Amino acid sequence: MIEIDAADDPRLADYRDLRDVQLRQHLEAEHGLFIAEGEKVVRRAVEAGFEPRSFLMAPRWLEGLDDVLSGSGAPVYVVPEALAEEVTGFHVHRGALASLHRRPLPSVEEVVAGARSVLVLEDVVDHTNVGAIFRCGAALGFDAVLVAPRCADPLYRRSIKVGMGAVFTTPWTRLPDWYDALPALSRAGFTTVALTLAPDATAIEDAVAGVDRLALVLGSEGHGLSPRWEESADRRAIIPMAAGIDSLNVAAAAAVACYVAARRSGTAPGG
Amino acid sequence: MIEIDAADDPRLADYRDLRDVQLRQHLEAEHGLFIAEGEKVVRRAVEAGFEPRSFLMAPRWLEGLDDVLSGSGAPVYVVPEALAEEVTGFHVHRGALASLHRRPLPSVEEVVAGARSVLVLEDVVDHTNVGAIFRCGAALGFDAVLVAPRCADPLYRRSIKVGMGAVFTTPWTRLPDWYDALPALSRAGFTTVALTLAPDATAIEDAVAGVDRLALVLGSEGHGLSPRWEESADRRAIIPMAAGIDSLNVAAAAAVACYVAARRSGTAPGG
Repeated sequence: MIEIDAADDPRLADYRDLRDVQLRQHLEAEHGLFIAEGEKVVRRAVEAGFEPRSFLMAPRWLEGLDDVLSGSGAPVYVVPEALAEEVTGFHVHRGALASLHRRPLPSVEEVVAGARSVLVLEDVVDHTNVGAIFRCGAALGFDAVLVAPRCADPLYRRSIKVGMGAVFTTPWTRLPDWYDALPALSRAGFTTVALTLAPDATAIEDAVAGVDRLALVLGSEGHGLSPRWEESADRRAIIPMAAGIDSLNVAAAAAVACYVAARRSGTAPGG
Repeated sequence: MIEIDAADDPRLADYRDLRDVQLRQHLEAEHGLFIAEGEKVVRRAVEAGFEPRSFLMAPRWLEGLDDVLSGSGAPVYVVPEALAEEVTGFHVHRGALASLHRRPLPSVEEVVAGARSVLVLEDVVDHTNVGAIFRCGAALGFDAVLVAPRCADPLYRRSIKVGMGAVFTTPWTRLPDWYDALPALSRAGFTTVALTLAPDATAIEDAVAGVDRLALVLGSEGHGLSPRWEESADRRAIIPMAAGIDSLNVAAAAAVACYVAARRSGTAPGG
């Protein structure tokens, strides 16, 4: 346990400017780290087996994490709350922060092995949405998540926080290849169902009926799926909506689609 | 069209410190105004019949709103982008802002007249969630929204923005009475179905089956519904979830529940 009282102390480098997305992306990639925020999420990260590099917190958060901290060999930097705010660039409401080592990502084959329902995210750019989608996938019975090369980072602080750590327990990886990602899943035995706003798409309930191994494919917040993914999916599905209304946002659409998909029958309609 | 070049110009008072929730709540209540942000949302507010007090924008946003501005008698304050940021306290990404007069809220009776599916929000405190719930209610076929006395303001800037203006077209009002709100809806012919995490609640699909006029009741982000509302609802419903997983957030739960409820049969099961 190490008390620190200077914001420029180099031991705090992992925690700098947590709201500066660009800076953080470089820093985290180059050092192979990610940040967990909040007592519950820090605990879950450690319990899921991620190795801490260090912890950072104000004195009042020490007690609640006592068992986690004493079970780890990593340094615990104890700072006044004002200093934590100065270093991180924001008021850390839930107190504790941890910097943890990223692990090598598994292969797609490992992630989907044995999975019946997989979420596939193309270019979801908002970390809040990535976290929300991991959380609802986990809650509603999906087994794994695959993210496209340009999708926002599931281990970014905000993704983790919004997802309440679902990213720690859900098997996931980044797809190495964008162009043939969906055909490759089809060859692996999945039926790829792309959620779209195309008016000629099938209602989601019908699109997933009878599908054994399902890969449910979601696109970007702005313009949805790329034409390549839309046309290379096995099926295109829509959530039926009231006329003249803006579509659901991607997290709400994901919640509905996961719910419907998780309750699909395992056999072909009428079969 | 009036060019303004001083941040302390009193004509900009409606637009000050848009990120300061406390300050804005007082200011908006006392002046009976609300703020619409972004070209699309400003347009929808005016088209829905709300009377503008004024508009505020950088020069490059004038053209896109030309028809809206010229059709209104309200002053258009044109300011450099840096000045807009100084006044409002943040970078206005989507350019245009409008300050509009609030209208007297209708009675509960007016709002629910003829409605088959109504959303009832108890103490949802996050404006983002209120906006998301209005949007998914509108998209998934709900007819009206009622908000409890302590629920966050549907006409707060962020609620409106996240809801893409659904609050302008969805009939809604604030419930005058908290304690007897649900029994009053039951007496008015609605079946009130409260979404809860209580393990003995009925699965949402079964809870809404056969319900003619439905009031779907959602609680706060943190602790859900109050005991009073939970026990005074006609039915308690749950979204079945994987064991050991945190519940869905309220916006995701609302999306799933609205989807399921909007597709319910109109007659009693087997009837």
